[in-house]
Amino acid sequence: MGSSLRIEESLQAALDRVSGPSAPPLLAEAMEYAVFPGGQRLRPSLCLAVAGACRDLAKRGDDVVERALVPATAIELMHCASLVHDDLPCFDDADIRRGKPSVHCVYGEAIAVLAGDALIVLAMQTLAQGAADQPERLPLLMTTVCEAVGPPGGIIAGQAWESEPSVDIGVYHRAKTAAMFVSACAAGAICAGADPAPWRRVGLKIGEAYQALDDLRDVLAAPHEIGKPVAQDRRLKRPSALENSTPDAVAASVRRSLNEALAAVPVEADAGEMARLLDAVVGRFLGAMNSSWAA
Amino acid sequence: MGSSLRIEESLQAALDRVSGPSAPPLLAEAMEYAVFPGGQRLRPSLCLAVAGACRDLAKRGDDVVERALVPATAIELMHCASLVHDDLPCFDDADIRRGKPSVHCVYGEAIAVLAGDALIVLAMQTLAQGAADQPERLPLLMTTVCEAVGPPGGIIAGQAWESEPSVDIGVYHRAKTAAMFVSACAAGAICAGADPAPWRRVGLKIGEAYQALDDLRDVLAAPHEIGKPVAQDRRLKRPSALENSTPDAVAASVRRSLNEALAAVPVEADAGEMARLLDAVVGRFLGAMNSSWAA
Repeated sequence: MGSSLRIEESLQAALDRVSGPSAPPLLAEAMEYAVFPGGQRLRPSLCLAVAGACRDLAKRGDDVVERALVPATAIELMHCASLVHDDLPCFDDADIRRGKPSVHCVYGEAIAVLAGDALIVLAMQTLAQGAADQPERLPLLMTTVCEAVGPPGGIIAGQAWESEPSVDIGVYHRAKTAAMFVSACAAGAICAGADPAPWRRVGLKIGEAYQALDDLRDVLAAPHEIGKPVAQDRRLKRPSALENSTPDAVAASVRRSLNEALAAVPVEADAGEMARLLDAVVGRFLGAMNSSWAA
Repeated sequence: MGSSLRIEESLQAALDRVSGPSAPPLLAEAMEYAVFPGGQRLRPSLCLAVAGACRDLAKRGDDVVERALVPATAIELMHCASLVHDDLPCFDDADIRRGKPSVHCVYGEAIAVLAGDALIVLAMQTLAQGAADQPERLPLLMTTVCEAVGPPGGIIAGQAWESEPSVDIGVYHRAKTAAMFVSACAAGAICAGADPAPWRRVGLKIGEAYQALDDLRDVLAAPHEIGKPVAQDRRLKRPSALENSTPDAVAASVRRSLNEALAAVPVEADAGEMARLLDAVVGRFLGAMNSSWAA
């Protein structure tokens, strides 16, 4: 089974564990709506790809990737939760997400807040249940995922910087975007028994590239290309890489960050798997951009 | 050090780990504001009391209670998170909580949503870091805490039932209130190496008593007694034990639930510790009521 299908199945299995006839129907429906159909599933794909690239080090074959499916699923659930809350009227007040009405537009604000909360909890339950046979890795995996979400440096902190009178754009983007890529890479390495430190840098650089690309897309893409309103960040006066740079300079910084990501890959990692990683992950987000800026 | 002081110190230590100069200041301040000063800290007190009552079984002395401080802290952080989100305009729209302006009134809705999110994540981080020396218990502890929070039967599900056209009042109250008491008792037992199953029933019965008492307080208490608006649940048409019962009948059900809780305590548990449990926990919420209904 390809890793994309495995991610979808694992997300569905996680949701199935907490829905069923005893759950409040609207909440269960809203959680499912928030997770499916997905976006590009970049973060979980990256997690699996890093686990795959480290597999030969672990000498344990395919079960390493299978094990990495657990944090990959948790990270995607956290990401979905952050999108649901980010779209709320008190934040971006976005009507459209992933090409369809956002969760609060369909289910109301109360259920949207709760669906986000419940997805955060589900992410943690997924980690706990998936690590039952290897509990010794669980504290590090949990810490790795939680750091990417909570303050001081995770996505929640990233959103909270938007309520401050001033913010360092590097700190903001690292928290709001790169932290989850860092976590995805580190978790993949941890599941393969590899040192997560160099992979954190790989994730950081991919995250920086993604954020710069997202800033470009916000300004340059058509709505059908990105599945959400264009120029939304500019309208909301979000700090953007384009504030002090031209699109050409930002596009150059995307390429530079990707090269730095590649250079940070440990030499002992599987080169073929790394090529697939870049095809699957970087290629995917460049492809989605469908623009010469990302050439 | 008394267990009340230990709980306050442990909550502060958890918050300190995620604040500091690199965190967004408003978010860090709002999280602290949501946690201090606390309410009665019933759930963490119950967790420690159960661990204490099981201590002789574990033959490990005081470190059992120390270890139970980890889930006790996590459970209180989850509880604080639920209060912050519950007070939001899209839910109860409550201006007052614990006798002071609610988090969204002071910091705005965006920071209130994020503070709740961050407290959920912090609860999980606290579990992960506190269990680093005993990771084999972490999956069960996490599952125990998560079940009390997420769907199908935790507090988030309890709140979500309020968005449904109809609800079984027993299901609603078990999810919205009793689930956290169940989790607190079970986690205390797990930390002492005891079977959590009988303690779940103790928690369920204490939770049922607390919910019925809360329904009484909503109708009968003065605002300064409960630190939040009175008759709020009635105004919001929340399902209440008083819908189909007289106050006298509800008061009788409180006493019956407490007796059932006491009867569910395993015979091998420390009786003296159990007396302290009832003094500390049940006595505290009856005392807070300051009303003949709770006699």
